[in-house]
Amino acid sequence: MARRSGRRKGPSDTRDRIAAAARAMFAEHGYDRTSVRAVAARAAVDPALVHHYFGTKQELFIEAVALPLDSFRALADLVPGDPDTLGEQLVRFALDLWDDPATQPRMLGILRSAVTDPGAARMLAGLFTREGPIRLVRSLGVSDPDLRAELVGTQLVGLAMARYVLRVEPLATADRVALVRAIGPTIQRYLTGELESGAG
Amino acid sequence: MARRSGRRKGPSDTRDRIAAAARAMFAEHGYDRTSVRAVAARAAVDPALVHHYFGTKQELFIEAVALPLDSFRALADLVPGDPDTLGEQLVRFALDLWDDPATQPRMLGILRSAVTDPGAARMLAGLFTREGPIRLVRSLGVSDPDLRAELVGTQLVGLAMARYVLRVEPLATADRVALVRAIGPTIQRYLTGELESGAG
Repeated sequence: MARRSGRRKGPSDTRDRIAAAARAMFAEHGYDRTSVRAVAARAAVDPALVHHYFGTKQELFIEAVALPLDSFRALADLVPGDPDTLGEQLVRFALDLWDDPATQPRMLGILRSAVTDPGAARMLAGLFTREGPIRLVRSLGVSDPDLRAELVGTQLVGLAMARYVLRVEPLATADRVALVRAIGPTIQRYLTGELESGAG
Repeated sequence: MARRSGRRKGPSDTRDRIAAAARAMFAEHGYDRTSVRAVAARAAVDPALVHHYFGTKQELFIEAVALPLDSFRALADLVPGDPDTLGEQLVRFALDLWDDPATQPRMLGILRSAVTDPGAARMLAGLFTREGPIRLVRSLGVSDPDLRAELVGTQLVGLAMARYVLRVEPLATADRVALVRAIGPTIQRYLTGELESGAG
């Protein structure tokens, strides 16, 4: 991914402080309710410095919420694993992404912004498709791999909406093990089960 | 629900036109990107008239996206039905809500707004809890009815995100019957199945 040339001009701690402030605000308020001015105030810098380092608000968003490159390593590591436990492993993987302080604000920022901002929507759609479980599903040699990967995405995004955005109870504070047991079989069926369970 | 006293003062077609304009804009752009001024322009009225009929933007939102009272009649009718087909019936019910031109803009407006606006979040959380399948689940005499109802909600909201907001393919244009068959068993298990499938 192209980096702005400003990257190496200023002290990196200022840049990092701006990115952290932006990430926190996008996570709490979403794209539309976060202004460059407010990010600058939270980072205690002049708004011009935000533009200098990151360009537009859209560019700031993309850099602030981009997932660390190794976020999906755990997903790739699932491929050689036991296919019969993939469902539960994928739920654990998703809960890790959402519970890890390094990735939770990024996931929240993307989810809170994707319903109105096209750039964020493309990022979230990417998690359903090219960056999500699609390679894992394709490696299984099952029918309809793309649809299966997206069905997995529907369940995991819905879980995130309920648990981390809407925080409905009892689900928001439900035990992690209980969630893995409740939702794992859903994911497992989407990955390797029979999807056409009806008369057809 | 309390009606503003303005309800009967003006011609009801003006009021309805404003509500329809607001509904369309909340559905397309979400709460934050919809202004009273823009709603007024779309309805070809003065912004003061929007405030006269609906009060604040928040009040306008609540009235514009409120689901018709009979939207959940079909859900209530499921209770006496065959419990073994409830999963597929609930998926059909959700797809009906989302595909019906009378309710789709309301559902879109709620979903696009709930990630940042507390009022919309309460409405969506209500669909997970008190207004959703909770009564249906409680009538089944199963364990953990509240958690089960919310698990149903996670799958149905995630489906809506993927199909109607992000529109990821092939899921967005997948055949309705295929979706009912793919997702029905998930909902069925959340309603009546064993949730603790693991060692516990």
